[in-house]
Amino acid sequence: MKNDVSDWWSTEIIDMAPGQIRMRGHPIEDLIGTVSFPQMIWLMTRGDLPTEAEAKLFECALVAAVDHGPQAPSIAAARMAVTCGLSLNGAMANAVNMLDDVHGGAGEQAVELYGWIDEAVQGGQPLEEATGTMIDRWQAERSKFIPGFGHRFHKPEDPRAPRLLGLVEEAASKGVVSGRFAAIGRQMQATLNARKGKPVPMNIDGATAVIYAELDFAGPLARGLFCLSRSVGAIAHGWEQMQQGGRNKGPTPPAYRWTYTGKNPIGE
Amino acid sequence: MKNDVSDWWSTEIIDMAPGQIRMRGHPIEDLIGTVSFPQMIWLMTRGDLPTEAEAKLFECALVAAVDHGPQAPSIAAARMAVTCGLSLNGAMANAVNMLDDVHGGAGEQAVELYGWIDEAVQGGQPLEEATGTMIDRWQAERSKFIPGFGHRFHKPEDPRAPRLLGLVEEAASKGVVSGRFAAIGRQMQATLNARKGKPVPMNIDGATAVIYAELDFAGPLARGLFCLSRSVGAIAHGWEQMQQGGRNKGPTPPAYRWTYTGKNPIGE
Amino acid sequence: MKNDVSDWWSTEIIDMAPGQIRMRGHPIEDLIGTVSFPQMIWLMTRGDLPTEAEAKLFECALVAAVDHGPQAPSIAAARMAVTCGLSLNGAMANAVNMLDDVHGGAGEQAVELYGWIDEAVQGGQPLEEATGTMIDRWQAERSKFIPGFGHRFHKPEDPRAPRLLGLVEEAASKGVVSGRFAAIGRQMQATLNARKGKPVPMNIDGATAVIYAELDFAGPLARGLFCLSRSVGAIAHGWEQMQQGGRNKGPTPPAYRWTYTGKNPIGE
Amino acid sequence: MKNDVSDWWSTEIIDMAPGQIRMRGHPIEDLIGTVSFPQMIWLMTRGDLPTEAEAKLFECALVAAVDHGPQAPSIAAARMAVTCGLSLNGAMANAVNMLDDVHGGAGEQAVELYGWIDEAVQGGQPLEEATGTMIDRWQAERSKFIPGFGHRFHKPEDPRAPRLLGLVEEAASKGVVSGRFAAIGRQMQATLNARKGKPVPMNIDGATAVIYAELDFAGPLARGLFCLSRSVGAIAHGWEQMQQGGRNKGPTPPAYRWTYTGKNPIGE
Repeated sequence: MKNDVSDWWSTEIIDMAPGQIRMRGHPIEDLIGTVSFPQMIWLMTRGDLPTEAEAKLFECALVAAVDHGPQAPSIAAARMAVTCGLSLNGAMANAVNMLDDVHGGAGEQAVELYGWIDEAVQGGQPLEEATGTMIDRWQAERSKFIPGFGHRFHKPEDPRAPRLLGLVEEAASKGVVSGRFAAIGRQMQATLNARKGKPVPMNIDGATAVIYAELDFAGPLARGLFCLSRSVGAIAHGWEQMQQGGRNKGPTPPAYRWTYTGKNPIGE
Repeated sequence: MKNDVSDWWSTEIIDMAPGQIRMRGHPIEDLIGTVSFPQMIWLMTRGDLPTEAEAKLFECALVAAVDHGPQAPSIAAARMAVTCGLSLNGAMANAVNMLDDVHGGAGEQAVELYGWIDEAVQGGQPLEEATGTMIDRWQAERSKFIPGFGHRFHKPEDPRAPRLLGLVEEAASKGVVSGRFAAIGRQMQATLNARKGKPVPMNIDGATAVIYAELDFAGPLARGLFCLSRSVGAIAHGWEQMQQGGRNKGPTPPAYRWTYTGKNPIGE
Repeated sequence: MKNDVSDWWSTEIIDMAPGQIRMRGHPIEDLIGTVSFPQMIWLMTRGDLPTEAEAKLFECALVAAVDHGPQAPSIAAARMAVTCGLSLNGAMANAVNMLDDVHGGAGEQAVELYGWIDEAVQGGQPLEEATGTMIDRWQAERSKFIPGFGHRFHKPEDPRAPRLLGLVEEAASKGVVSGRFAAIGRQMQATLNARKGKPVPMNIDGATAVIYAELDFAGPLARGLFCLSRSVGAIAHGWEQMQQGGRNKGPTPPAYRWTYTGKNPIGE
Repeated sequence: MKNDVSDWWSTEIIDMAPGQIRMRGHPIEDLIGTVSFPQMIWLMTRGDLPTEAEAKLFECALVAAVDHGPQAPSIAAARMAVTCGLSLNGAMANAVNMLDDVHGGAGEQAVELYGWIDEAVQGGQPLEEATGTMIDRWQAERSKFIPGFGHRFHKPEDPRAPRLLGLVEEAASKGVVSGRFAAIGRQMQATLNARKGKPVPMNIDGATAVIYAELDFAGPLARGLFCLSRSVGAIAHGWEQMQQGGRNKGPTPPAYRWTYTGKNPIGE
C-alpha cells in the first residue's frame, strides 16, 4: 500500500532522508559554496551541471531581464500588492502570474520559432529563405505578432539586444555554443526590417531566446527563466514601495479616475 | 499636469529613455556580461554592488534553498498547477504565493530575532543571556514557534545548516563579514537544545537568515530572496510535471479520497 | 491633458461621483435589497437585468458547482494555503488560479462546442449528424478530450447533470429558454455513449454549459462564473482548514514522501 | 494503511460516492433548484441553512460590494491581467490576491472591533462609553486606522452604508436579527465624527461588517465573502477588458512613464 502513495509524486530532482538532501544526485552540502546560482538553476532544471563558460552565458540572460520599470504590468502589480497589505511573496506571485502568453511568453515562442528556422537550415534550406518561410508560417498558424521583435519604447534599438548578441558571438568564437541561433536572430532582424521598411528592434525576449536556444533550453523553460529573472525586479520594486508606504494604491493618481462610457451617467 | 501622473509611480531603481536603460544608475549594457546574477540581485534590491566576496557568500544562501521536494506545499502547488493547464508563470505564482508567514516567513522572522539579540549584545549584554532573554521575548510577543529552528524531518541536523555556518565563519575569518550573527545562531542552537533537552536543529531559514543578517539585508528581503531561490525548485518541478503529463492531479492518489466527518454521511 | 489619463481606463460598468455609485447605470442603493445576487452578477457581466425566471435558472448553475472535495487541485490548494499562513483572499487566489484550461476551462470549451453544433442545426443539418460532425471537428482542431463529458469518479452518472438538464427543460417548457442546448447536450450524451460503447457521463462542466449557452452567456464568462461558484468551496474549505490548524501541510501524510527516480539515490 | 492517507484530508463539508455528492449532508440534487446561491454560500461556510429572511439580508452584503471601479488595485489587476494573456481565472486570482489586510481585510477587522464593543455592552458598559474605549484599544493594540470608517472619495457619505444599515434595522424590527451591531455601527459613526470634527463616513467594509456581525459570521469569513463579492467585479472588468483588447497594458498611459529619483539619471 505504501508505494502507491509515494509513487503519486515522483521526481528525478530531489532525494531526501533524515539529515540528507541530494539535488539531481549531488549532496546539497557539496553544491553550496561550490556551484554558482546560475549553475544551480541549470542543474535543477536540466539535471546536469553546465561548464563555467556555458553558465557564464546563461547568466547574461538572467541578468538582462530583471526589470523594465513600473509601467510593466508585472512590476505595477508587485507595487500595488504591497500597498494592499501583501508581503513580498504575494507581491512576487501577482507579478509572476502576469507573465502569461502576452507579457512573458514571447521568449518561449521565440525559442520555438528559432527552432523551426534552425530545423529548416539543418535540412538544407538557406538561412534567409528559411527565415522568411518560417515567419510566414508563424503568422499563418500562430499570430500576427512575431515573438521577440518590436518594441513600443526602445527605438531604433533595445540596448540589451546588441550586448547579448555580442556575448553569444564571443562565446561561439570560443566554441562554447554553435552561434547558429545568433545568426538566425540577426537574419530575422534583417528580414523584418526589410519587410516593414523600418527598424523592428529585437527585444529582450528575442535576445534572451537566442541564448536559451544556443544553450538548448526547452521553450517552456525560457519562459520560466524569464519569470525568475523578472522576479528580481518584482522584489526590488515591492520592497521600495513598502518603504515608500501608501495604501490601496491604484494605477493612476486618484484625482483622474476613469472614463465612464455606459448608460445613464452621473450628472446627466 | 504631466508631473502628477509620472510622479504617481516613482523609483530609484530604473531609468529609461528610448534606447537606454539604467539600473540603479548603471547602463544595462555595462552590467550584462560583467556582473554575476547574485551581484545583480544585490544591486537591484539595495542600490549598490557588493564585493566579490560578499556576493559569493550571498550566493550560498540562494543556492541552498532552491528545493525541499514535492511534499512542500509550494512545490506541490507548482506541480498541480501545470496539470490544471497553467504555464510555468502560473505554476511559479501559485508556488510563491504559498510562501507566506508560516511557509516562507521564518527567514524574515529569524533576521528580526537575531537583530534583537545583536542589539542587546551591542548594548553590553553577554551573548548567552541576551539569547535567552530574546527567545523569551519572542515567545511572549510573537509566537511560541522560534523561527529558523526545528525540523520535522531532518534530525538531528539539517545538512544545509552546518555547511552554511561554516562558510559564514570562513568569510568572517577573512573580514568579509563580522561573524556576529553566526555566533548568535550557534548560541541559539545551544540554548534551544538545552531548553528542550534534545536537538532542535537550525533549519534552512535559520541558516540563511544568518547570512542575510551578516550581509545586512532587511528582514523582508530575506523572505523575498527565499522566494526567489525556491522559485528555482518551482520551475524545475513544474517543468518535470509537464513532461510527466497528468490532468487535474490532486494531492493524493484518487483511490484514497478523504475522510468525511460531517452530518448524514453516504451509506448510513 | 486630463482626458488622456482618465481615458486609459474606460468602462461601461461603473460610474462614480462623491457620494454616488452607479452600476450599469443603476444607483447602487436601488440595487441593494432589490436584486438578488445572481441578478447582480448577470447585470455586472452583461449590462442588463435578467427576468426572475432567467435568474432562477442561472442560479442553479452557480449553486451546482461550488465544490468537488479536497482532491480537486483547486480545493487542495486553498487548504494548503491557509496552513502556509495565507488569509482567505490568498487561499481563494491560489484556488481560482488553478482553474485554468484543464481544471476550469471545460465549461468555456463546451459552450463553444455546443455553439458549433447549434449553428450547424440552425443552418439546416439534423441534430444527430451535426453533433457527430462537430465532435469530430473538435477532436481534429482542438483536443481529443471532449469538454463536458466523462468523469473518472461519477459513473455511470454525475448526479448534478440530470438535475440541471431537468431544470433547463422545465424552463424551456415555460418559454424561459429555447431548450436547444439541452437537446444538444442530450444528443452529445447519446453520440458519445454509442461511440464508446459505455456511459461517458455528462459532467458538471457539460451541464452548466447547457445553462450558460441557453442563457446566451459568452464562453469566457462560463469559465469566470464557474470560478465564482467554486470560490465558495475554496472559502468553505480554507476556513475549515484554518479551524483544524496545521502548518505547511503537504499533499500527502509526511510519512510517505515521494518516489525518487533519478541518479545516485540515497542509500545505494 | 488506507485510513492514514484518507484522514490526511478530512472535512465536514462534502461527502462523495460514485454517482452521489452530499454537501453538508444534503444530496446535491436536492439543493440545486431549491436553495438560492446565498443560501448555498451560507450552507457551505457554516453548515446549516439560513432562513429566507436571514439569506435576504446576507444577500444585500454580497450585492453591495461587487465593484468600486478600475482605480481599485484589485480591479486594475484583473484588467491588466487579461491584457497579459491570462484567462478569467487568472485575472480573478490576481484580483482576489490583492484583497489582503489593507484592501480587503477591513471587514474582517470591523467584525472583530464591533465584537469587542458588543462584549463590553453585554457586560454592562453603556454603548457610547464602550465604543470610545474600544476605539482607543484598537488604536493602541492594532492600528491607527479604524476599520470600516473613512473614505478618500465618498464624502460626506458612502451611498451603500445608509442603505445597508436601513435594511439591517428593517430586519431587526422583524426580529430577524438583534440590531445590536447596527447600533454599534451608528455609535461608532457618531463617536468618530465627534472626535474628528468632520464626517468620517462608514464605508462598505464597515456597513457589510454590521450585516456579517448581525448574522454571526466569523471575522475571517467576512473577508472571504467580500472577496467573493468583489470577484464579480473582477469577472465583469476582466471580460470587458478582453473585449476592448490591449496588450501588456500598464497602469498609466505609456507617454507618461514614471519619475526616476535615483543616482545618475539619463540626460544629465
